[in-house]
Amino acid sequence: MALIVQKYGGTSVGNIERIQNVANKVAKFVDDGHQVVVAVSAMSGETNRLTAMAHEIQARPIKREMDVLLTTGEQVTIALLSMALQEKGYPAISYTGWQVPIKTDAVHSKARIEEIDSEKIFGQLNQGKVVVVAGFQGVTPDGDITTLGRGGSDTTAVALAAALNADECQIYTDVDGVYTTDPRVVPQAKRLDHITFEEMLEMASLGAKVLQIRSVEFASKYNVPLRVLSSLQDGGGTLITSEENFKENEMEKPLISGIAFSRDEAKLMILGVPDKPGVAYQILGPISDANIEIDMIIQNQGIDGTTDFTFTIARGDLPVALDLLKSTANKLGAREVLSDDTIVKISMVGVGMKSHSGIASQMFKTLADNDINIQMIGTTEIKISVVIDEQYLELAVQSLHEAFELDK
Amino acid sequence: MALIVQKYGGTSVGNIERIQNVANKVAKFVDDGHQVVVAVSAMSGETNRLTAMAHEIQARPIKREMDVLLTTGEQVTIALLSMALQEKGYPAISYTGWQVPIKTDAVHSKARIEEIDSEKIFGQLNQGKVVVVAGFQGVTPDGDITTLGRGGSDTTAVALAAALNADECQIYTDVDGVYTTDPRVVPQAKRLDHITFEEMLEMASLGAKVLQIRSVEFASKYNVPLRVLSSLQDGGGTLITSEENFKENEMEKPLISGIAFSRDEAKLMILGVPDKPGVAYQILGPISDANIEIDMIIQNQGIDGTTDFTFTIARGDLPVALDLLKSTANKLGAREVLSDDTIVKISMVGVGMKSHSGIASQMFKTLADNDINIQMIGTTEIKISVVIDEQYLELAVQSLHEAFELDK
Repeated sequence: MALIVQKYGGTSVGNIERIQNVANKVAKFVDDGHQVVVAVSAMSGETNRLTAMAHEIQARPIKREMDVLLTTGEQVTIALLSMALQEKGYPAISYTGWQVPIKTDAVHSKARIEEIDSEKIFGQLNQGKVVVVAGFQGVTPDGDITTLGRGGSDTTAVALAAALNADECQIYTDVDGVYTTDPRVVPQAKRLDHITFEEMLEMASLGAKVLQIRSVEFASKYNVPLRVLSSLQDGGGTLITSEENFKENEMEKPLISGIAFSRDEAKLMILGVPDKPGVAYQILGPISDANIEIDMIIQNQGIDGTTDFTFTIARGDLPVALDLLKSTANKLGAREVLSDDTIVKISMVGVGMKSHSGIASQMFKTLADNDINIQMIGTTEIKISVVIDEQYLELAVQSLHEAFELDK
Repeated sequence: MALIVQKYGGTSVGNIERIQNVANKVAKFVDDGHQVVVAVSAMSGETNRLTAMAHEIQARPIKREMDVLLTTGEQVTIALLSMALQEKGYPAISYTGWQVPIKTDAVHSKARIEEIDSEKIFGQLNQGKVVVVAGFQGVTPDGDITTLGRGGSDTTAVALAAALNADECQIYTDVDGVYTTDPRVVPQAKRLDHITFEEMLEMASLGAKVLQIRSVEFASKYNVPLRVLSSLQDGGGTLITSEENFKENEMEKPLISGIAFSRDEAKLMILGVPDKPGVAYQILGPISDANIEIDMIIQNQGIDGTTDFTFTIARGDLPVALDLLKSTANKLGAREVLSDDTIVKISMVGVGMKSHSGIASQMFKTLADNDINIQMIGTTEIKISVVIDEQYLELAVQSLHEAFELDK
């Protein structure tokens, strides 16, 4: 018997039939002897309906009241799912965020969970009930209703799993797992049975949008085994755990787990900057201050006492960043400012890199064999990223996928 | 400066424009220097929408979960009304039932309020805020969500007014007050400026469906001045208070406040019952046991050692009651059972009757002058009711209204 926390998103509970379908899925786990806690989102469309009403009244609705308004969405779902379970003969009880309670700080619209009281939930589980909890919502110490922001229901599920010390947290979504790369680019892409939190974080932040980064971080922090799987079809999905949790027979894990890529990239260059201590901060500071996130950075020292900087940002931030950089260039007496928004970033991710060298050179060779020029290189312990011209994205990902035998 | 509790029903908050209209009404009272607490219902149609979803899942939805589901309705309204007030520059804050908290017993779908904690509300009022409270809902000592049943938002408003010791509880509805009788029967019917709780209870229970009886009883118990008025048009409405609250200059209150009537009546007669102690219970007991409410009762002792019983019930209960009575008649050896569902009840209500005699005889004379036969008579301290043939209803009400100068 295991204790399982499951999360179903808005599409999975989008109408009565789908809610009944979720009840069937939950029932199977109960039949198999497991204890089940379910976190649910608002029915799809509901949040938009409520938000539209608020916007009819206020251009920027008061956040406290917006949280009061939006949390009704999940409250409707928990009641209906509990009814559906009981109708099928499975005792169930619903809890809103404040009923659990899921205690958060007071930052309305993006609160952080501080503590979850597990007493009530355990009490109900021990009576043989399925416990249905409203995702996305919590309550402050003063009794105000809060919401957790984007991907909040995933966070609720992971936090519940951590608080209850659950055996597994299952996130049901519209994809059946995490793939070696985007199947739209590489039809041979394979579903991964098992990856590490670290790999998932690198994959997610690089564009494989299956799980919210925050919930993966949370699961990693509390070492909650996380499973991504489809609410529509059967299958084991992808299990995400810490590296230590890999089983013996999985020791021969491939060096590379997947290839992520991002088209949302732009490159800025400032050339011929007089090289003095503090020049990096003078160049990048104004851009960070404008809340523009800087990703990769390269500095090239010239022989004439000047230096060149190249860095990447999100494509949409380019106009603002370019203006800021030009003004900095004037101030510092730099020679030239250049920009390029026709680039992409491709990253190979795998914990195997920690102990194996040669992966970078094999990657560079594969790209060279395909006449793809590398403009920038960045590495972490488990990732190698390159910036290339966007026209080569498909070719690069396909040939890397094949070269590293990710389809095997 | 007064402390006023206002209640707006589902129609008054039925769309965004109407919610903004309610905000304008509230704002006027704030501008006049009053402190305002507002209790609101779900937007009209919302409760039906939610109920329909529940019924798609369960023929008889679990009451605990139904309460979780339905209470989202008022939660949406409080958030939107608070936004509307703040958008107009009036600081406001919303509270659900559990946030106040409005503590109730655990009878889901028809809970009773046990206690209201006024601390939070006073705290917000003292900061100059309008407090918007979800009607119809409360919370049990165990933290379960409850609803108060029919007319629950009226009850919430009156209970809040009692707990806060408010100067007045205003119930906004789609009529502009309580009338001397139904204007559809007597076009000259006049709006009453001021009546007593006792009168209102007699009027309401007799068919003048303006306020839920329960909320009037509650207001009477805690001596909360209650005002019924229109949410659509201006006007002072009808004030309902205890008899002691009538002002000096209102001493010359008319003897009769109004004429109520009910078409939902049927009459049963059991004739020639051998007269023994306990016979009344033997006749009426089985009918009460079937949850059929008996209204007026007359017993007539015959000279031959038998007795006749006549009593009235709601028209819809007639078939069941008739079967029960026939079986009783067999058992007791009664001569005959008769029934009549073409009767109506007309009641004259007025606290003035307590100290003035002669009203009954004037009523009987008026009916006699119009050739209307009286079938039954019943009286209380402040009410005289007669049962007549339904074809004379309009004539009776019109001539009584005129005879007692209620249009003056």
